[in-house]
Amino acid sequence: MFYSKMFIPTLREVPADAVIASHRLMFRAGLLRKLANGLFAYLPLGLRAFRKVEKIIREEMNNAGALEIKPTVVIPAELWKESGRWESMGESMLRAKNRLNNDFVISPTAEEACTAIVRDELSSYRQLPLTLYQINTKFRDEIRPRYGVMRGREFIMKDAYSWHTDEKSLDDTYQIMGRAYRRIFQRCGLSVIPVKADSGAMGGSGSEEFMVESDVGDNTLILCKACDYAANVEKASCKADFTLTSIEAAKNVASNTPSIEKIDTPNVKTIDELCSFLKTDSKCFIKTLIYRAINVELDLSDAPGCAKLGRKKPSNDAPAVYSEAFFAVAIRGDLDVNEIKLASILKASEAELASDTDVSRYTGAPVGFAGPVGLKSIPLIIDNSVTAMSDAVTGALEKDVHYKHAAYGRDFTAWMIEDVRTVKAGDKCPVCGGELYTKMGNELGHIFKLGNKYTLSMNVTYLDENGKSQIPTMGCYGIGLDRTLASVIEEHHDDAGIIWPLSVAPFHVTIVPIKYDGIVKEKADILAEELSKKGIEVLLDDRNERPGVKFNDADLTGIPWRIVLGDKGLSQTPAQVEIKRRGEKESVFIALETAAAELSLKILNELETYK
Amino acid sequence: MFYSKMFIPTLREVPADAVIASHRLMFRAGLLRKLANGLFAYLPLGLRAFRKVEKIIREEMNNAGALEIKPTVVIPAELWKESGRWESMGESMLRAKNRLNNDFVISPTAEEACTAIVRDELSSYRQLPLTLYQINTKFRDEIRPRYGVMRGREFIMKDAYSWHTDEKSLDDTYQIMGRAYRRIFQRCGLSVIPVKADSGAMGGSGSEEFMVESDVGDNTLILCKACDYAANVEKASCKADFTLTSIEAAKNVASNTPSIEKIDTPNVKTIDELCSFLKTDSKCFIKTLIYRAINVELDLSDAPGCAKLGRKKPSNDAPAVYSEAFFAVAIRGDLDVNEIKLASILKASEAELASDTDVSRYTGAPVGFAGPVGLKSIPLIIDNSVTAMSDAVTGALEKDVHYKHAAYGRDFTAWMIEDVRTVKAGDKCPVCGGELYTKMGNELGHIFKLGNKYTLSMNVTYLDENGKSQIPTMGCYGIGLDRTLASVIEEHHDDAGIIWPLSVAPFHVTIVPIKYDGIVKEKADILAEELSKKGIEVLLDDRNERPGVKFNDADLTGIPWRIVLGDKGLSQTPAQVEIKRRGEKESVFIALETAAAELSLKILNELETYK
Repeated sequence: MFYSKMFIPTLREVPADAVIASHRLMFRAGLLRKLANGLFAYLPLGLRAFRKVEKIIREEMNNAGALEIKPTVVIPAELWKESGRWESMGESMLRAKNRLNNDFVISPTAEEACTAIVRDELSSYRQLPLTLYQINTKFRDEIRPRYGVMRGREFIMKDAYSWHTDEKSLDDTYQIMGRAYRRIFQRCGLSVIPVKADSGAMGGSGSEEFMVESDVGDNTLILCKACDYAANVEKASCKADFTLTSIEAAKNVASNTPSIEKIDTPNVKTIDELCSFLKTDSKCFIKTLIYRAINVELDLSDAPGCAKLGRKKPSNDAPAVYSEAFFAVAIRGDLDVNEIKLASILKASEAELASDTDVSRYTGAPVGFAGPVGLKSIPLIIDNSVTAMSDAVTGALEKDVHYKHAAYGRDFTAWMIEDVRTVKAGDKCPVCGGELYTKMGNELGHIFKLGNKYTLSMNVTYLDENGKSQIPTMGCYGIGLDRTLASVIEEHHDDAGIIWPLSVAPFHVTIVPIKYDGIVKEKADILAEELSKKGIEVLLDDRNERPGVKFNDADLTGIPWRIVLGDKGLSQTPAQVEIKRRGEKESVFIALETAAAELSLKILNELETYK
Repeated sequence: MFYSKMFIPTLREVPADAVIASHRLMFRAGLLRKLANGLFAYLPLGLRAFRKVEKIIREEMNNAGALEIKPTVVIPAELWKESGRWESMGESMLRAKNRLNNDFVISPTAEEACTAIVRDELSSYRQLPLTLYQINTKFRDEIRPRYGVMRGREFIMKDAYSWHTDEKSLDDTYQIMGRAYRRIFQRCGLSVIPVKADSGAMGGSGSEEFMVESDVGDNTLILCKACDYAANVEKASCKADFTLTSIEAAKNVASNTPSIEKIDTPNVKTIDELCSFLKTDSKCFIKTLIYRAINVELDLSDAPGCAKLGRKKPSNDAPAVYSEAFFAVAIRGDLDVNEIKLASILKASEAELASDTDVSRYTGAPVGFAGPVGLKSIPLIIDNSVTAMSDAVTGALEKDVHYKHAAYGRDFTAWMIEDVRTVKAGDKCPVCGGELYTKMGNELGHIFKLGNKYTLSMNVTYLDENGKSQIPTMGCYGIGLDRTLASVIEEHHDDAGIIWPLSVAPFHVTIVPIKYDGIVKEKADILAEELSKKGIEVLLDDRNERPGVKFNDADLTGIPWRIVLGDKGLSQTPAQVEIKRRGEKESVFIALETAAAELSLKILNELETYK
């Protein structure tokens, strides 16, 4: 391919809104252009790299036994009404009405479409397990699209969905997908961090996110310095810095603690104020917070104060939920409650701090005096840390009054004891006890066990061995192609431009003649031809530009191998060309005659390592 | 690939709404399912064939020097407002508003997006010619989607667009594309009829449609029995069955005709009535019709009765038009006016018969008495056929009065003489004089010279050799992938199912063990493995079904080669397998030992013929 025919509009200027390397370089190297905020067009060079990522993903999906299908991008709203997501997806979902006033969704994801396809064809357990995937256009109306294709509004995703008769079969496919994902990222030259993640609005449990480190990442990752423990902060746990105690042991310890006692604490509201007032440490304080949780699936029929709560059964066979419920959460004073972990424990769609009015209603006191002792009006959840506290200060459910010498097991018990603590850098790894640290990360892929959320609401059934109707369980496995490509550039670049891994490079070799004329032109053409015949993808810079301009563009576009041909090298005996690996400092001269054979062998061998 | 793992839900029943073979067979063979009216999902077997069509098209586009890009499917309305098509596309275009109340288009076509991309990067004539293409999702809200993917609402098209400095360069690319299209269809095993076509609402001239014959086609084609002349009836011409006459010659001939004379024709309105009243033939009658044309681009400043017509200059640099203008068209009484040819001559968006009121206004008489003699209030267009008429009957612009002995050249002349006749079966070929016949056809592809419609309205410019700003001219080249795939099935099937051409078959070979068990299973597995190693795509029917069921499914899904393995054949010395080409009656037995080598050679050789 001749450079002059390739439409590579490289830029010297950096687009003003491009704050991350991949965004900057995809524009500067002529891979991408903007059509509107969050909407981008791939140009020829960019699309060549994109298609290589697509091919790797398709190969790995096929190898994993997944079957490619292609539903439409525009989906009738009826399917989304069945699943209940027509209402719950909110404004990020683009909707359209056609000439007949029918509602449509521009797919933000494909659970509904794929489940509908399977529903109509599934009859017997013999058809399961089944894994289908699509590589298709999606649209999500991000409020703040930014970072180029890293967070665009239209993008291409590979989504796979699997259906199973039992958990074992789901887990088998889940493990196969986990391995396929590792291979995909490895083949793209990406270092990913597989982390345990909260599965969020998708529902279900058992999930793994594939993250890349990014200063502008959406996710905080908790990593261990000593082992390969990695988790999203939303789910991360840590080794307790206390001895987790049974209630009997706690009572025993408490017997050595002075009796609980009220103290006046006028005008003392925050923990800091209290610590300085009492000359103690926040670790000796039990912080108690009142939370409001929404759409709680957990059964609360035996929970304190919840007897009168109404449980709502949605029409579409989804599980019954309490639309709103309140909880008290007690935790050691130096720690923070992780609201996402809390919501996950409650099987709630969200958990947030209650309003001041609600706090007063449940604690009988103004904000600042909540505590576990004597709290009867509301279910009390205590963090593991509190079980180790036998001589604590805490609110006394009265204005300007606290307790001291409060002991778990003796002075209060809990409705539920859970790990609800937010893990921080410096905490200890739950696996090996090593020191934890944090990184910001971007999610490239996510695999998770979805359970029967969609098969239940969309009424998917099959007959088991005994002819009995059953509901299959599902898994779900996504990768963003655009984001994967951008992440390759994030990981592989320098100040001069992109440094493509060979596996996804738009071309393997760029030939740069010092001047594309006379003998240099002739030899460059022959060399390009020889390399092409061996299956090497060659970009020949035939432009009438100064060598400096061509070298800069070669660095910017990041083609892995550069071959420079000039009069000087060609006039030597034997004739020489200069070859250089992008990203390395030194170039070497090799004989023109054997250059094609030598370099193509090197390249084909390296490509093998990506297979 | 094992049949049991492939998700091929074949059907015995024909879907009620499937009236054409491809629709019926794509459903029955498990290639396709319906998500909603006009919205379909490809299942794994169908998508394998679809991807092969896509690959052929991509290869031929790349070979033709076109560069693949990928704009978004959801396009900001601003670009469509620039081109003027936000208003003109009507209700077939699906529109959406996002959370910020911005308007978007779900692309029905990509002129705007691609032109916008080029506009921003084009600076010099040195960048031209440039041909870009996409293979992307499109949506058109058909009023009556039907015939499966042959006329769906969402579909995939390949669109290429080219930009040029001059007509010569445009024509070069147009010719290259014409050859690429012929190769694409040949490689897909399709017989296409390339026809000259009206380029319709797209604007521009110089266009070729690639049609396949179809009983339910949208287009009437005019074909010659003797040569390869083929045209859409909208544009077709024919050899005149009269001598085309100059005005001087016409005057000479007319000198032998009796003087023109009024005759009373009370209560005679239609040509049939007139013919029986005068005992003459419709060929001796000049029929005169009044047409109303909309958005007429042709300059009418010198046309009779048009001096006061206002010409409107749209804001977006599109050419000035008369929003409405009226014309009289005279044609020999046995012929019909082709309104699309007429509109094309007038450069109008549409031409339709005028209302009775307008007819009276321009002819001064009720409907039925229009004629060319003495008509001054309106431009008169006469069909070529009228130039040969020297003794005709025609309306006299008075109620119940006609002329006889009317002669062209002597009694009337025309503002314009044109071919406006509708060609019919039985007319003579304009090229060779052979007999013309008609067929119904469906358009699979369309290439045409678009001119500067979009580059003008969207303000695309470049600097020429002299540094002067110029507007490039454009070409446009589309193929519908879904329709191409469906047409392959239309052309290649029998009562039992599909008969895939090897080039687009989802698999090359299906292996059908009579019973997938014991020695048969062992040999079938080995044979599948051997064939796969040679690059042959094999579907092994491992199901526990009766042989009849498997044979029916093999016929239905249409895999080109079937290999049957059974105990009987395998127990012979040497062991035998039965091979059969789909669509042929006879099968042959060949030795198992050499079957893989023999068949793979045959298949690979045949595949070569599609390259």
